Amino acid sequence: MAARIDTMLILGLGLIGGSLARALKARGFCRRIVGYGHREASLQRGVELGVIDSYTLDLDAALAEADLIVVATPTLVAAQMLERILPRLAELGRAPVITDVASVKGNLQRAAIACCGAMPPNLVLGHPIAGSEKSGVEASREDLFVNHRVILTPAAENDPQAVQLVRDLWEVTGAEVVDMAVDDHDAVLAATSHLPHMLAYALVDALAQSPMSTDIFRFAAGGFRDFTRIASSDPVMWRDIAIANRDAVLATIDQFSAQLASLRAAVEREDADAMLQTFSRAKAARDEFALMLEARSRKD
Amino acid sequence: MAARIDTMLILGLGLIGGSLARALKARGFCRRIVGYGHREASLQRGVELGVIDSYTLDLDAALAEADLIVVATPTLVAAQMLERILPRLAELGRAPVITDVASVKGNLQRAAIACCGAMPPNLVLGHPIAGSEKSGVEASREDLFVNHRVILTPAAENDPQAVQLVRDLWEVTGAEVVDMAVDDHDAVLAATSHLPHMLAYALVDALAQSPMSTDIFRFAAGGFRDFTRIASSDPVMWRDIAIANRDAVLATIDQFSAQLASLRAAVEREDADAMLQTFSRAKAARDEFALMLEARSRKD
Repeated sequence: MAARIDTMLILGLGLIGGSLARALKARGFCRRIVGYGHREASLQRGVELGVIDSYTLDLDAALAEADLIVVATPTLVAAQMLERILPRLAELGRAPVITDVASVKGNLQRAAIACCGAMPPNLVLGHPIAGSEKSGVEASREDLFVNHRVILTPAAENDPQAVQLVRDLWEVTGAEVVDMAVDDHDAVLAATSHLPHMLAYALVDALAQSPMSTDIFRFAAGGFRDFTRIASSDPVMWRDIAIANRDAVLATIDQFSAQLASLRAAVEREDADAMLQTFSRAKAARDEFALMLEARSRKD
Repeated sequence: MAARIDTMLILGLGLIGGSLARALKARGFCRRIVGYGHREASLQRGVELGVIDSYTLDLDAALAEADLIVVATPTLVAAQMLERILPRLAELGRAPVITDVASVKGNLQRAAIACCGAMPPNLVLGHPIAGSEKSGVEASREDLFVNHRVILTPAAENDPQAVQLVRDLWEVTGAEVVDMAVDDHDAVLAATSHLPHMLAYALVDALAQSPMSTDIFRFAAGGFRDFTRIASSDPVMWRDIAIANRDAVLATIDQFSAQLASLRAAVEREDADAMLQTFSRAKAARDEFALMLEARSRKD
């Protein structure tokens, strides 16, 4: 197809940024893709692998010619990046479409509003629900987003053409694009992803500090392995997400703690009916979710 | 080999009882294996499949001739079973070796002491750490226990020969036998198995009841699937385990809740160092556990 965009600038060339670049290059969405980041080795490797066409260490120069900017840095760096590029683009009198891939949207919205007084019409926040246990540009894959969901959180202030461009960009990668409000996105992700990570980390840390920890890990089996798998995730990434999505994470921890306290009370008073109700409702919801996920993965 | 035991009686012919019978038959540990249970269809199927030699619906008659009794019923039924067979065997003036396979040991110990005034010398409690997503005698497998752990909780009152017989019985199945104190067993299992089930059930139930539940399950991905897999477990079995191991379950819920409250406080005050410490300690412990589990499964 004819390129929709002349120069795309990717800030941060890791797994997500690299996979997006690969997918867009494969489909000819951009005439050229330029990488920027703080690790020159990753950028060099990106060029060698053909993920990007070139790279620069001069952000200001890159901003002067980018027609589309994708912020693909870690969560907290993404907010700093917006605080840096939005004023600079204003100085340059330029307004290329900007989007991002971070796990939390509210902190970026706040950062942008703090910079510009309101959401800039050209900034369309987004979040691809895709990942891998591997990280870095070496692990990037052209098909990472195929049949995965991408959530966009368009603002009332957004230029509809900017939103459409970001939607098209993700659809070209094979993803299914869904719109949500920023607060809903952050609440849903807190519930399905951030809270489970907090619980898994808290559980494993509690057990590791127990006087019986040797026996505990020695006798743990498959259920424990699956339940705690996410406690092997990157601590820095999850610290950043907990900070970026603080309020929603606190709210889901409180919601969960209330539920656990109610289950604890049922166990304490040996209330067989209350336990059976909770366990049966949870099993029904989990079984339905598993079927849904199976149907979705058959499309992969 | 020459049979160690003449008549073995299995009370409850499900996945565990059936698999034990298959393994012992294959190695000729018993001359004959008799099944007893409340579902005649399972017992008939057990005979058809060659898992047991015969079955009976007359427990008293079976007790009169059993040389070894394995209680392989669900957790709470196992306590009732001991309350029923211990007085009857006393009336018969018989003391065959008795063992069990239940997930909790303290409630069985209390039931036996309540019946007999002290732990009977012939009752050796045990717990094979093995299972399958399938259940029932149809799913039973000769190799279910190979390279799995079996925890025995011998009492000071136990006849050493009874303990040795139960140890031999499990070693014949290919399991690795480990001794623990009853309280330690129940605390370790509460931490590694019962608590994670309570957390997974509480989480999924909390999310299912949320006004956003549709979006929550729609956007949940692989991490959530693994974390919540155990919430698809049998509600009746887990209600019984929560009741049988009430005190240890309450203690681990409290220990976990304290850890979660401390993590919540770190998130609230945006204490990046405290979060990073918790997440890093947990990741180190989880990574080490994963290596251990991998090494163990390579032996399978």
